[in-house]
Amino acid sequence: MTDPATNALSATARIDISRSTRIGMPEAVLCQHKTVGQCADIVATMLDQGQDAVIATRITPQQAQELNKLQPSHVVGTTMTWRHRPATNHRVAIVNAGTSDLPVATEAQATLLAMGHTPVPVNDVGVAGLHRLLDALPEFEQSAVVIALAGMEGSLPTVLAGLVAQPLVGVPTSAGYGTSFDGATALLSMMASCAPGLAVVGIDNGYGAACAAHRILNQLS
Amino acid sequence: MTDPATNALSATARIDISRSTRIGMPEAVLCQHKTVGQCADIVATMLDQGQDAVIATRITPQQAQELNKLQPSHVVGTTMTWRHRPATNHRVAIVNAGTSDLPVATEAQATLLAMGHTPVPVNDVGVAGLHRLLDALPEFEQSAVVIALAGMEGSLPTVLAGLVAQPLVGVPTSAGYGTSFDGATALLSMMASCAPGLAVVGIDNGYGAACAAHRILNQLS
Amino acid sequence: MTDPATNALSATARIDISRSTRIGMPEAVLCQHKTVGQCADIVATMLDQGQDAVIATRITPQQAQELNKLQPSHVVGTTMTWRHRPATNHRVAIVNAGTSDLPVATEAQATLLAMGHTPVPVNDVGVAGLHRLLDALPEFEQSAVVIALAGMEGSLPTVLAGLVAQPLVGVPTSAGYGTSFDGATALLSMMASCAPGLAVVGIDNGYGAACAAHRILNQLS
Amino acid sequence: MTDPATNALSATARIDISRSTRIGMPEAVLCQHKTVGQCADIVATMLDQGQDAVIATRITPQQAQELNKLQPSHVVGTTMTWRHRPATNHRVAIVNAGTSDLPVATEAQATLLAMGHTPVPVNDVGVAGLHRLLDALPEFEQSAVVIALAGMEGSLPTVLAGLVAQPLVGVPTSAGYGTSFDGATALLSMMASCAPGLAVVGIDNGYGAACAAHRILNQLS
Amino acid sequence: MTDPATNALSATARIDISRSTRIGMPEAVLCQHKTVGQCADIVATMLDQGQDAVIATRITPQQAQELNKLQPSHVVGTTMTWRHRPATNHRVAIVNAGTSDLPVATEAQATLLAMGHTPVPVNDVGVAGLHRLLDALPEFEQSAVVIALAGMEGSLPTVLAGLVAQPLVGVPTSAGYGTSFDGATALLSMMASCAPGLAVVGIDNGYGAACAAHRILNQLS
Amino acid sequence: MTDPATNALSATARIDISRSTRIGMPEAVLCQHKTVGQCADIVATMLDQGQDAVIATRITPQQAQELNKLQPSHVVGTTMTWRHRPATNHRVAIVNAGTSDLPVATEAQATLLAMGHTPVPVNDVGVAGLHRLLDALPEFEQSAVVIALAGMEGSLPTVLAGLVAQPLVGVPTSAGYGTSFDGATALLSMMASCAPGLAVVGIDNGYGAACAAHRILNQLS
Amino acid sequence: MTDPATNALSATARIDISRSTRIGMPEAVLCQHKTVGQCADIVATMLDQGQDAVIATRITPQQAQELNKLQPSHVVGTTMTWRHRPATNHRVAIVNAGTSDLPVATEAQATLLAMGHTPVPVNDVGVAGLHRLLDALPEFEQSAVVIALAGMEGSLPTVLAGLVAQPLVGVPTSAGYGTSFDGATALLSMMASCAPGLAVVGIDNGYGAACAAHRILNQLS
Amino acid sequence: MTDPATNALSATARIDISRSTRIGMPEAVLCQHKTVGQCADIVATMLDQGQDAVIATRITPQQAQELNKLQPSHVVGTTMTWRHRPATNHRVAIVNAGTSDLPVATEAQATLLAMGHTPVPVNDVGVAGLHRLLDALPEFEQSAVVIALAGMEGSLPTVLAGLVAQPLVGVPTSAGYGTSFDGATALLSMMASCAPGLAVVGIDNGYGAACAAHRILNQLS
Repeated sequence: MTDPATNALSATARIDISRSTRIGMPEAVLCQHKTVGQCADIVATMLDQGQDAVIATRITPQQAQELNKLQPSHVVGTTMTWRHRPATNHRVAIVNAGTSDLPVATEAQATLLAMGHTPVPVNDVGVAGLHRLLDALPEFEQSAVVIALAGMEGSLPTVLAGLVAQPLVGVPTSAGYGTSFDGATALLSMMASCAPGLAVVGIDNGYGAACAAHRILNQLS
Repeated sequence: MTDPATNALSATARIDISRSTRIGMPEAVLCQHKTVGQCADIVATMLDQGQDAVIATRITPQQAQELNKLQPSHVVGTTMTWRHRPATNHRVAIVNAGTSDLPVATEAQATLLAMGHTPVPVNDVGVAGLHRLLDALPEFEQSAVVIALAGMEGSLPTVLAGLVAQPLVGVPTSAGYGTSFDGATALLSMMASCAPGLAVVGIDNGYGAACAAHRILNQLS
Repeated sequence: MTDPATNALSATARIDISRSTRIGMPEAVLCQHKTVGQCADIVATMLDQGQDAVIATRITPQQAQELNKLQPSHVVGTTMTWRHRPATNHRVAIVNAGTSDLPVATEAQATLLAMGHTPVPVNDVGVAGLHRLLDALPEFEQSAVVIALAGMEGSLPTVLAGLVAQPLVGVPTSAGYGTSFDGATALLSMMASCAPGLAVVGIDNGYGAACAAHRILNQLS
Repeated sequence: MTDPATNALSATARIDISRSTRIGMPEAVLCQHKTVGQCADIVATMLDQGQDAVIATRITPQQAQELNKLQPSHVVGTTMTWRHRPATNHRVAIVNAGTSDLPVATEAQATLLAMGHTPVPVNDVGVAGLHRLLDALPEFEQSAVVIALAGMEGSLPTVLAGLVAQPLVGVPTSAGYGTSFDGATALLSMMASCAPGLAVVGIDNGYGAACAAHRILNQLS
Repeated sequence: MTDPATNALSATARIDISRSTRIGMPEAVLCQHKTVGQCADIVATMLDQGQDAVIATRITPQQAQELNKLQPSHVVGTTMTWRHRPATNHRVAIVNAGTSDLPVATEAQATLLAMGHTPVPVNDVGVAGLHRLLDALPEFEQSAVVIALAGMEGSLPTVLAGLVAQPLVGVPTSAGYGTSFDGATALLSMMASCAPGLAVVGIDNGYGAACAAHRILNQLS
Repeated sequence: MTDPATNALSATARIDISRSTRIGMPEAVLCQHKTVGQCADIVATMLDQGQDAVIATRITPQQAQELNKLQPSHVVGTTMTWRHRPATNHRVAIVNAGTSDLPVATEAQATLLAMGHTPVPVNDVGVAGLHRLLDALPEFEQSAVVIALAGMEGSLPTVLAGLVAQPLVGVPTSAGYGTSFDGATALLSMMASCAPGLAVVGIDNGYGAACAAHRILNQLS
Repeated sequence: MTDPATNALSATARIDISRSTRIGMPEAVLCQHKTVGQCADIVATMLDQGQDAVIATRITPQQAQELNKLQPSHVVGTTMTWRHRPATNHRVAIVNAGTSDLPVATEAQATLLAMGHTPVPVNDVGVAGLHRLLDALPEFEQSAVVIALAGMEGSLPTVLAGLVAQPLVGVPTSAGYGTSFDGATALLSMMASCAPGLAVVGIDNGYGAACAAHRILNQLS
Repeated sequence: MTDPATNALSATARIDISRSTRIGMPEAVLCQHKTVGQCADIVATMLDQGQDAVIATRITPQQAQELNKLQPSHVVGTTMTWRHRPATNHRVAIVNAGTSDLPVATEAQATLLAMGHTPVPVNDVGVAGLHRLLDALPEFEQSAVVIALAGMEGSLPTVLAGLVAQPLVGVPTSAGYGTSFDGATALLSMMASCAPGLAVVGIDNGYGAACAAHRILNQLS
């Protein structure tokens, strides 16, 4: 009953193969909470259907081992990718507040690479040592979009929004403990930002931030 | 002690007159919780300092009356503006789920107009009657950015994110009652969206959504 | 002191043996947080008392092994059942948004099977690829009730409620991470739905959704 | 650009005139947060378009006065209706825990009347005096669906779910103060119910409960 | 600097040895989050100081093994006690909604036994099968106080409060999953109870409920 | 259909006239959210039925005026009572942390008076000036039960629970602002108390606290 | 029964007259939620008892009018004070993020003045225009303590904590709307701060911040 | 691009080496959520750069083993320190409510030692046995600052704030279970304190409390 032009029924999923045509981005696979078999089945179908970029996020070591058997992959952090799109000339800064944000930052990085863009990592510029951020501003002057990650009180994207003119995507992370409440505090902080034009994705959603950036870059080419 | 090149001390505020240079947008005045006198003082200083676009949001009727004495203004909903920037050729769709979202939609609309852009209102296309949204898609094909507002369960931006390729800014609104929890439900829903690349601003923050759009349009010119 | 006609005292429980007479459904056993011995005692008593359908949900592998010794069982996902009721001619669609909802979907499926109904699984039709859902509508036209599961932002049941006339039972699932808040976001979203007539059960409560469906089917025969 | 067969553009709204065809129920008007003019415009268009039952909920006295000028209406509590559907032979019990739930109960009542069904009010049977509920059970034996409202701790629907076999729609109300938290406590209580097959709509959503009941009754005829 | 008449400094704690004199109950040891060594040190000091009843709650198997070396103990569930007070003639009903509440119920039971009272367990009388509770009422007619435990929606104590005249102590338990929110739902439900005179202790606090009962029994003798 | 021996149908309510027989306390009327007419109807029926003590809480001035026409009443704060029970010899201390708790304290006081007991007010002994509480301890040595009210951080009942042996009923009040969160902070604080045997009723529920006290006093006579 | 050396019983309160001796600060009167009469009674008693500084916060215009009749007062914002302590040579910076924080800032200011200290207001230096804060740093180099107020996302105190060495007291304010959640977002943000040594008082608690500053200044003299 | 005078780029971090100059305290390493390699790299760079006191908090045993290879360290609880500052003559009381607060108390203790101050531990003085606290007051009369830790209902700092004149830093801890909600209850309680001048840091943030104390001590020398 499924339209073969738009969907592909694998053993366990109904893959949205027309997504790239509609919204400029292919479906990705969130591996968390899926069995190794489910992940392998879905990725294999995507590769078979000729999807132009295949992205699997939040993979466990066991899943990674099995997925790599399908076809050699790129791995950054806990993200695996196959068949990257041709390189664009777009740069995206990925600015994080501290080392604990790296797992989320690398998810954004891997996703952007698969879409052909150039991620520019700017690490460890939390606002407690503000000069680090001010010193680092020239590092991402050439970036068309800025992704800013922070856990704990999540001030970094707010401060950045007062300093740079680029589109800014905030990502609250679950870094921290206690009153960080697993990222909820950073999320609320970013959503209530006093600085104009900060738009935010969900907690730890590095993939979503990269997609928001891609939507913008799409308009530039 | 304040650098006259970047700040302007009015009777009640320290106005950030270099903001347009830094981030491409002037400071705006949130009138809610300010006295009539404070609002008038700040707007007057902005006009005196030659700020290229002056925006005052969430004005009460009393404040409006006083502010209009300073200099004739444009009024859309509860937003007043003076000195609009020259027109760009950029369109921004403002898609709302229902009539109750209009106060927030008009705040975005007024802000975009002051910045020189063309807002494209697409009203009352909530997902309970999905064909309304599907029918309306051509109305905003030419828009470079889509702002999507919804209260209650806030599904509209998620559904849109699966249908269009443009950058998408979600705005949760406080429309609804009971389980809408003054917009908190819509906010959570948009932040947890299963659709890729939806970025979100705070509850009822029409101004912030317009600023996020402006950051993107800035990159296009 | 317990009335033998309505209760049965096992070693650890006071089993409600008149429940089928009162409300058309037998008591089921929620195995989570119970010891293997408690589960076995309760199921054994239910089988001994001649309960016409016996259902044990959220069983661990250890519990399953012991329970299967009592009498051969049907197993779907983490639900075990014994002594199914005679088949009715009622179909119930179980529509889920993604593969991660399957553990909850199978709990509903197993419960319906034990009550004699025919579950119609409609998998992986999340609203990010809306055509999947639109294409799949004919698959469940014959179903008297629709159970709709979704995690993350939980929009699927709301969208469905604008498309089909059947009774609709929403089930928020804990699929997702971060801002999904273990299903709380999906729950709030479904409860604040802008679409008319969506009724909702608790997070991950596949069993409860099947019971809500059964109450409706009861009225049809 | 709107399909005239399915939508009707009034001055302020995009009315979903095909809703009855799709889901068996017409669009209704939530008047709260709308201006008197917006309400009048929408109701007038619905009447003009020949919608078979017109329902306006949460009307203020000012709105009511203006709406009644359009065409004489039925008024129950804060709900106005025009053009009722032909009577069915279906009864729906509306069971409430206390007098403070009446504003929500009457919203359900008015909606059911407009759809042609017979509401059976069962008032003031809160579980603190359990015999009131037990005594009242025969009052709604003939009802095909039971709507149960409660505020405060919201136990009534749970207790009912163990006593009757009918489909059961719970409605948490904002009755009570303090720890009732404007209905949130009753909502959580109903969603976590230990009794099987209770499905729940949003806080104070009498209209939604009536729609859920109507979906079920639709299957019976 | 510590007054030897009221405190006893062990290696790790400042034990409140005058507590029985002041409030009629000795200090107890919450073993959760303490090391084996800390627990042993504190219990040993209490035994040495001649405390008239020694109670250790939430013990792990490792802690239990070490504590039993100090002096043979009574063990009920995860509570260990030494040196019970002389028997009173007071009975306290411990009514629970289901088997999953037993770990909390046994904590109350062990504490009451150490204080010399007679616990009357009334198990598995959840309100989904109301007749179980009604049938069981005579079982605890002789009890001077009723402790009522429930997880999930926590209705049991509310229903009981409408049926019996005794002092009633509600204990929300973390039994259940999903919308039970680890006992928060039951807690809110009990605190917002529509039935008069239900007083409540914290989630899973069986020990606290027994102490509240003891304060009442103290007044009777 | 209502049993005349246990219920009384007034125009708007189903009054639980057997409540005193069952649980030793009559039904009371929560006037908040009820119309003047509903309040008058219910109180009149209670007086007609011969209820031995009639209590109406949270009355507005308009309601008070109308209710007083039925029969002269006692008024304390916002509570009206008629037909007090014969005096017992029981005293109940009502200890509050500050002047802002008085509206809740007087609700407890009025309820106890109607039941025949002697309230002992102990005002303004918040823990910020601990000696006030220590000095006041002799004032309520003769009280069989202690009701302790506090808003803000709600420490008073916890501190009291370490000082006195009587049964203790905590009442969180909505006194305070900001982080007091309308009593939620005090409620959580009291429920997590480190002191043994504190039992708690809902926010601002002075009536409920008095009923909890009455259940205890009932056992003493 | 009250010790005359430490308490003073007025008509409505038990005034803690030994507080200055114990903790170096007199009791203050929170007028919100008190009647005009209660406020006047308490302030009059404090003046009579010779309290060395009398402070009344959150006064309404009606209360102010009555209180001023007792004795001429100092008024700053909604705080009234009588009998200031002799001037110290201590300065306290009161740094706020925007004009909407002024009502809280003036409460701190008035309290410090009554205690003899010199408040140094530094207004409108929100982090969206960071140079305003950096430019203003010399304004409060001589302050021994810094009080930093912010609403919305509450980043200001965190950024300050990375720039200055002084003791820092954060005050979340309820400025903002929507996702500011009446100050809860700012509170969480400040408590989860990534910058070392920021200590925080409750939402809008300008009085408390001044008291925290006074405790520190007390150690300096 | 980084200014070598203020930052030091290690393999994984941008170390804020000018922090001591700016705010009087060096950067510390939060080891939780970092890999062993990241921790070792950061600590090694800090030691190489000559940072005058090096502090690593929340270390796992595996991290500790590797870090100790760099250079012999001081270990208190889960905090490691290298190169203590010269001793000051300042004492800081660390008052805790119970043995379960010790892991947080020792983090504060280790941090103060590294900064050259003298921590004064005052253990196990929870308010349930108030005399323990009253007896212990002389133990910390000589302390210039008081850090007060408590979990559960978190009353201890509030009670202390009414008894001592020193600056007071509250630390909510996650000690307790159930209604303690991992420290959230204690946090809210401390923030809503009725006692004047209590300032609070985040849940379990012993390090932050020590830094707040150090900021104060800095002003004294």
